[in-house]
Amino acid sequence: MRVAVVGATGYAGMTLLRWLARHPEMKVVAAVSGHAGGEALESYLLPTSPLPSRLLGYEEFAEMEPVDVVFSALGTGEGMEHFRRWVKAGSRVVDLAAAFRFDDLSVYTPYYGEHPAPDLLEVAFSGYADDPAMVYPAHGQVLGNPGCYPTAFALAVLPLVRARGPIPQIFVDGKSGVTGAGRRPKVGLLMGEMAENSEPYNDPGQHRHTAEMEWVSQGRVVFQPHLLPMAQGLLLTCFIPDSPWRAEEVLEVWRAFYSGNPFVYISPRKPRTREVRETNRAWLSCAEDLRGGTLVLYCAIDNLVKGAAGQAIQHANRWLGLPMEMGLE
Amino acid sequence: MRVAVVGATGYAGMTLLRWLARHPEMKVVAAVSGHAGGEALESYLLPTSPLPSRLLGYEEFAEMEPVDVVFSALGTGEGMEHFRRWVKAGSRVVDLAAAFRFDDLSVYTPYYGEHPAPDLLEVAFSGYADDPAMVYPAHGQVLGNPGCYPTAFALAVLPLVRARGPIPQIFVDGKSGVTGAGRRPKVGLLMGEMAENSEPYNDPGQHRHTAEMEWVSQGRVVFQPHLLPMAQGLLLTCFIPDSPWRAEEVLEVWRAFYSGNPFVYISPRKPRTREVRETNRAWLSCAEDLRGGTLVLYCAIDNLVKGAAGQAIQHANRWLGLPMEMGLE
Amino acid sequence: MRVAVVGATGYAGMTLLRWLARHPEMKVVAAVSGHAGGEALESYLLPTSPLPSRLLGYEEFAEMEPVDVVFSALGTGEGMEHFRRWVKAGSRVVDLAAAFRFDDLSVYTPYYGEHPAPDLLEVAFSGYADDPAMVYPAHGQVLGNPGCYPTAFALAVLPLVRARGPIPQIFVDGKSGVTGAGRRPKVGLLMGEMAENSEPYNDPGQHRHTAEMEWVSQGRVVFQPHLLPMAQGLLLTCFIPDSPWRAEEVLEVWRAFYSGNPFVYISPRKPRTREVRETNRAWLSCAEDLRGGTLVLYCAIDNLVKGAAGQAIQHANRWLGLPMEMGLE
Amino acid sequence: MRVAVVGATGYAGMTLLRWLARHPEMKVVAAVSGHAGGEALESYLLPTSPLPSRLLGYEEFAEMEPVDVVFSALGTGEGMEHFRRWVKAGSRVVDLAAAFRFDDLSVYTPYYGEHPAPDLLEVAFSGYADDPAMVYPAHGQVLGNPGCYPTAFALAVLPLVRARGPIPQIFVDGKSGVTGAGRRPKVGLLMGEMAENSEPYNDPGQHRHTAEMEWVSQGRVVFQPHLLPMAQGLLLTCFIPDSPWRAEEVLEVWRAFYSGNPFVYISPRKPRTREVRETNRAWLSCAEDLRGGTLVLYCAIDNLVKGAAGQAIQHANRWLGLPMEMGLE
Repeated sequence: MRVAVVGATGYAGMTLLRWLARHPEMKVVAAVSGHAGGEALESYLLPTSPLPSRLLGYEEFAEMEPVDVVFSALGTGEGMEHFRRWVKAGSRVVDLAAAFRFDDLSVYTPYYGEHPAPDLLEVAFSGYADDPAMVYPAHGQVLGNPGCYPTAFALAVLPLVRARGPIPQIFVDGKSGVTGAGRRPKVGLLMGEMAENSEPYNDPGQHRHTAEMEWVSQGRVVFQPHLLPMAQGLLLTCFIPDSPWRAEEVLEVWRAFYSGNPFVYISPRKPRTREVRETNRAWLSCAEDLRGGTLVLYCAIDNLVKGAAGQAIQHANRWLGLPMEMGLE
Repeated sequence: MRVAVVGATGYAGMTLLRWLARHPEMKVVAAVSGHAGGEALESYLLPTSPLPSRLLGYEEFAEMEPVDVVFSALGTGEGMEHFRRWVKAGSRVVDLAAAFRFDDLSVYTPYYGEHPAPDLLEVAFSGYADDPAMVYPAHGQVLGNPGCYPTAFALAVLPLVRARGPIPQIFVDGKSGVTGAGRRPKVGLLMGEMAENSEPYNDPGQHRHTAEMEWVSQGRVVFQPHLLPMAQGLLLTCFIPDSPWRAEEVLEVWRAFYSGNPFVYISPRKPRTREVRETNRAWLSCAEDLRGGTLVLYCAIDNLVKGAAGQAIQHANRWLGLPMEMGLE
Repeated sequence: MRVAVVGATGYAGMTLLRWLARHPEMKVVAAVSGHAGGEALESYLLPTSPLPSRLLGYEEFAEMEPVDVVFSALGTGEGMEHFRRWVKAGSRVVDLAAAFRFDDLSVYTPYYGEHPAPDLLEVAFSGYADDPAMVYPAHGQVLGNPGCYPTAFALAVLPLVRARGPIPQIFVDGKSGVTGAGRRPKVGLLMGEMAENSEPYNDPGQHRHTAEMEWVSQGRVVFQPHLLPMAQGLLLTCFIPDSPWRAEEVLEVWRAFYSGNPFVYISPRKPRTREVRETNRAWLSCAEDLRGGTLVLYCAIDNLVKGAAGQAIQHANRWLGLPMEMGLE
Repeated sequence: MRVAVVGATGYAGMTLLRWLARHPEMKVVAAVSGHAGGEALESYLLPTSPLPSRLLGYEEFAEMEPVDVVFSALGTGEGMEHFRRWVKAGSRVVDLAAAFRFDDLSVYTPYYGEHPAPDLLEVAFSGYADDPAMVYPAHGQVLGNPGCYPTAFALAVLPLVRARGPIPQIFVDGKSGVTGAGRRPKVGLLMGEMAENSEPYNDPGQHRHTAEMEWVSQGRVVFQPHLLPMAQGLLLTCFIPDSPWRAEEVLEVWRAFYSGNPFVYISPRKPRTREVRETNRAWLSCAEDLRGGTLVLYCAIDNLVKGAAGQAIQHANRWLGLPMEMGLE
């Protein structure tokens, strides 16, 4: 299986390359960068054996024989002309940005504005790689890989919604390492600013990932993200008021839902982001406020692996009929 | 004014010493430690000019002439026999632990168990040093300095309660640097465990500080604390459902409440813990979810300064009739 | 191949378990702990599929059928009675502590004191897993895996000594993440003490690893180690005065020495510890002070992987006749 | 005393403002920024009482009445036309960049290139604020405040050179927090790159600060700087081969040299950068390799305070005839 990684020099792109280098059935034949084409990959990543040694620019990549799977780590709305070419050539595209995460533009546009390629929506689909009911449609060619926060959210909430229907209201406190904000240099992401710092960003409900979360819970989500003084890792704490669920029931439903899934660790112990760092695993836990009806769900993932590159590979595995854990353990 | 710091080798004790060394009206005549009496203070803190050079043990301290103020940074319930002696000698005691934060034992005991010194309750009182209505009763001899999380909570919530009454329900996500968990070595606090880590601890509503918070909001508080990979700093994010408040009104009420208080910075910009690190300041902000009735309040403080030693000194200043900012700028 | 990990709950032990879980030819049949026997391994490490789920105590381990390889991550001098039993049973032992790193007691005792098991020395041997000339003697049963600092040192210096003989004097500045100091809780290793901190420890030439380094360079080593505010990673900067070597020659000699070794990355670019974090790789670089005769060598490794568990597995691979990179990529 | 801070939005500029706000004899009447003139200072620094609330652009500043002291935190060679104007107006200028640190252009130009304002050299002078023999010449108008690494170096080495003459060779390993590299966003300074990272930068002897160090030691300095995963703090480890000094003698000479100086802490205990963080203090220590003739000196400072803004204020104090510790404790 010949695969390409486009947007190879950002954090998600590099994480894709590092994991794909170990994949027994996928071979990275092109690491593509719009701005770094021609440079040695070694300037970004220690040389790793089956990876190509040089980054390709778009022109060179356009002249290559089509690949089986293109992983795109470009920004939302970037590179649509390339997407069209790959789709035409029969490649499958796994897009790590947001344009193909929604089949309903009325959900997309309030957060992202006009859609950059509505013509591609009919071959697009989305979902969560750990959802046992996830379907990869026969005509599908573009898979919208979920965002990092919604992935953690869906891991915790989707099984509950499947079991008992919509959850009317959830207050979500999100905490992420700074790689979640990308690799483009900004003052606020310098270690000189972030060491010994923690801060909320975006207004509640304004973060773009809110749409994906409400899609999952089928209710109102008030989401407040925060930056933490660390590079990798993401932790969600979800407060569900007036919940009919007991903590034990949640653990049971999760265990049934993720039965046989090696990536989801379920425990009454509260999750620690470092334990899932550099893995495709999620750590789920929950607790209830014994004095009232509040249920609290916790989910820790690595924002770059399960929250981006790892899930993308897991999706590609399932889409291609391979075992979903291939190359990810 | 002769003062003593007891429990001098923990984080709160050392922070007290560092700030008191700069206080123009208080002179630390004794830095007391139950286990390190006789050691050079230099082993814990770079020598700082008006501080004593040697730690005192309890016996030596007992033989000293009484001081005007004793700052106690012992654990909750520790050292009550010393408290009694100091009270008898006419000293004022500022206690940084929890035993004297409540005037109602039915609030105290569910979280802390039996009270260690009910006989002292009649000379005890508590409150927030930034509360303009704080009263220092004439007969009072023991001041229960608030906990770090409740301080941040009260800074944000108390003005709203004063203005419009109880707030029925608040979901509080607390984030703290590891010094909040003390200086006694535990595996979970090692940098080897906490670098690149973030984790919730305690069940929601089980953290002892919940009682102090509900005291302030006069409603239900679901409090979930987290440890962050940093040494100092505390950030609270409070979700208030179905709130009648608009964000702008909150800013106005805060500005009026803290008018003239140099320690409270109020801004629509969201707070960053590093900006208040090593200061006695709080950074308050708020936002609303425009799509619904949720109000979100944010408060950042340094857990060791405003959340412990700084507030204790501010309290002592007010209690003694000194300007509250003396030695704290 | 049945293997056991003894001292499984320290940093080196847990790192061994995580990597061995992926090894295609070795199966961990016992994770042994003197103090945590009977506990679920899950309390220390997320459950990982072929690992046992429960830690064994010494008694239980003693009753098991002998294993092919025992990896011991106990402290220097601990568990010698177990070593004897395993040797008698015909197992191979890879010891991550210091007792079997030297074949000359006159080098060992000045740094470590009396040897804890001189009777085992005749079946013991040592060396560096990346040394192409490393020999695994037929009678050998106990392999003394090198220390973390000496490993980084040998990676840089051994090829030069092999090429042109002893190096009379090297000034070595070592920098390590705090996991290098172990997992036993100590005040100085708390994140509250180490965030925003860097400090030298031990006097120059007093660190025990000095002996191993001088063994390699066959000259005087003045070694000054430092703790850095990070969990994992080790960086050596070696100043060699009056060196006949030019930087380019060093790069060439290294490239020849490590030809075909996938673990050693050689570059004129200076090494970054994060690039080798959680890998068995080393990053070597060098530079010269153009104004004089000083050569500077740099080596970055992960102290827990190449500096401990990774090298141990690489050694075991070679000892057992397996490809040295098996399970380590 | 009316003072201005130019280059107010970088790390050194902001540190100047924070400390000057507490200075009893200096009043900041202008915080000047070439690119942020007109912005609220609040966007960079929490409002602090006697500081101006708005940043000034160059034009506005040019129209102000001259101030007594201008602290310039611009880059080396920047703003020379402003320097000329201030000198003409009779102001004293404390320049935190390198242009006026040398009275010998043959030392300056190999590292920095052509001098940007040779006409100002005759009113320029330099030196170390903790040097008791420092002279502030009557005709002097521009003080070249030393660099951060040379300050730490001079603190340790200058007393020895004064006592016994030049030191022929010193190998210097420098470690700095990332604020030492400035506040302009660069990929390599992001927390995403620097968390869990340590790396050397520049070739040995190529760092510009080498010139200042050799000026102090009057011998050869091989200097290798490193970036550490922290915001603030600087640690130097200096290896001196074949040294006639014993560690005890060094401590004695230091104690005599810094007698009465509250900023220099001298101890056989090794320094920790966090203990001097946010202070104008230095922590000096030394040790010898008992097996040979190597002396090792250690010095920890805060790169932004003693290594930049703090020393600049200390210099201004001495220059103006104020107590050198004024505003710095």
